[in-house]
Amino acid sequence: MENSHLKKYLDLVEQAVQNIHFPAEPRQLYTPMDYILGLGGKRIRPVLTLMACEACGKNASEAIQASLAVELFHNFSLIHDDIMDKAPLRRGKSTVHEKWNTNIAILSGDAMLVRSYQCLLNYSPAVSQQLIELFSKTAIEVCEGQQMDMDFETETKVSIPDYLEMIRLKTAVLLGGSLAMGGLVAGTSESNIDDLYEFGVHLGIAFQLQDDILDLYTENKQFGKQAGGDILANKKTFLLLKAFERANTQQRIKIDQMLNETDAVLKIEQAKTIFDELDIEKISRDEMDNHYSIALKRLNHLSIPSENKTELTHLAQYLMNRDH
Amino acid sequence: MENSHLKKYLDLVEQAVQNIHFPAEPRQLYTPMDYILGLGGKRIRPVLTLMACEACGKNASEAIQASLAVELFHNFSLIHDDIMDKAPLRRGKSTVHEKWNTNIAILSGDAMLVRSYQCLLNYSPAVSQQLIELFSKTAIEVCEGQQMDMDFETETKVSIPDYLEMIRLKTAVLLGGSLAMGGLVAGTSESNIDDLYEFGVHLGIAFQLQDDILDLYTENKQFGKQAGGDILANKKTFLLLKAFERANTQQRIKIDQMLNETDAVLKIEQAKTIFDELDIEKISRDEMDNHYSIALKRLNHLSIPSENKTELTHLAQYLMNRDH
Repeated sequence: MENSHLKKYLDLVEQAVQNIHFPAEPRQLYTPMDYILGLGGKRIRPVLTLMACEACGKNASEAIQASLAVELFHNFSLIHDDIMDKAPLRRGKSTVHEKWNTNIAILSGDAMLVRSYQCLLNYSPAVSQQLIELFSKTAIEVCEGQQMDMDFETETKVSIPDYLEMIRLKTAVLLGGSLAMGGLVAGTSESNIDDLYEFGVHLGIAFQLQDDILDLYTENKQFGKQAGGDILANKKTFLLLKAFERANTQQRIKIDQMLNETDAVLKIEQAKTIFDELDIEKISRDEMDNHYSIALKRLNHLSIPSENKTELTHLAQYLMNRDH
Repeated sequence: MENSHLKKYLDLVEQAVQNIHFPAEPRQLYTPMDYILGLGGKRIRPVLTLMACEACGKNASEAIQASLAVELFHNFSLIHDDIMDKAPLRRGKSTVHEKWNTNIAILSGDAMLVRSYQCLLNYSPAVSQQLIELFSKTAIEVCEGQQMDMDFETETKVSIPDYLEMIRLKTAVLLGGSLAMGGLVAGTSESNIDDLYEFGVHLGIAFQLQDDILDLYTENKQFGKQAGGDILANKKTFLLLKAFERANTQQRIKIDQMLNETDAVLKIEQAKTIFDELDIEKISRDEMDNHYSIALKRLNHLSIPSENKTELTHLAQYLMNRDH
């Protein structure tokens, strides 16, 4: 995250992460936690918590423990998701289950989840309880989203509403929850908590849709992934599911041919052709824009001084590649 | 648990477990939770929570949610431990990862752990925070104990103090935590919380040592496991580790021969012979009795009317097979 607006928050998060000292023993339980946290990442979620707290009038540092809870939870979910996805790499380094083994990855993930709860105990009982309630609801939803995502792999028909619900649960609610937790620490109104939460949820959905779109339609050479990676893996993204939804019988045959194509270059070409025919890029961008604009409306509705919204606006623009 | 003294609490727990209604979807996330809870088990931990609450002067029903948290946590740990141990059966039925698959077992375990926290939110903020603090500390320790247990499998030398620390963490602290949580719900004194906790911890250690002893030295035909199962699996129990500790060079050779013996009957015979030579049964029973008597001392020290201790005394006797 290079954006200078975000640096202040990012520094706070990084320092807090550095200051976590896990016990030395049992080594195999705690070393993986240091390892995964040390792989870095954009730290968007904890930054959101700090920003929301400050936007609502309290010092960002008061939300440090809540932001750590969110970051620990996120890293716990990465460890376990990587096992489930059999992923060999995370941020260019070995995943925990590859570097150690699956048992260690399961167990250190479990302990990391518990650790995330412990961070939330560093508040007054009333705030602590509110934080843990929201955090738990969010955590359950993230599990539900992951289960839906796994279910989709083997389901032949996945509807667009089901897909949107899956990305809402798997990705978006944690952004919403991170923001709302910052608001809870600041003691802001219920209506503001609600706005923060929905701002984050719709931003998260827009962000995930952007991820789907950029897989195929990116001019940005910095975009890290292999272009068309989702297509090559026959991944059920918004684009593919929308194409299924809109295709007539003949177009459906073309899609199936594309899915069975083994030559990578041909496959991506075929996907682009049929997607163009079905206007998939525009429809996807419209859906993304729709969620992004709902997000901005909720940010606008947030009842705080408008100058306090600057950082959150910048972060939204940054996430949606609209800061340049 | 047939003991009539326990039935009242057991009925409360069973009813509360029956009343848990998980969402219908995603089915693969929630069905395993119903399944593992439906396998039954002795429900000792939640019963301890209810008993402790009532012993400290409040109605047992007030501790229902705390007792459910403990039972959900215990079942979460069974799901994940069974993956790690590659166990095909749990209470005579397929384990979750066998009946579904490892991914589903990981994820529904995760969600169940979160669910256990949610139970603890059903108290006043102050009590809730105390419960979650103790619960989290206990949960981390259980993970540490499981990691130590896995580490021991490949370690050539495990000391008796390390073994006792492992069973304290893996098994005993959850009994202590269950009791202390009941005390927290009842709002009893810190000193009483401490007594309840240590009563449970030492009872738990005694119980685990009894488990090790009964594997080889049982006349009780009802004892469910294959006699000598630990010996046949070369499991590092208190008995074997104590034998290692006490053996001279020649006896050590005999132990190693026994460990390499492939004939089951011979192997158990050899184990009994060398253990007799080293007085292992008596030493183990002394260690067990020592922890049991510390447990009873802490129960005795507990500052509540002595008639309130009846149920806890019965439970301790029941667990240690001393109720007949």
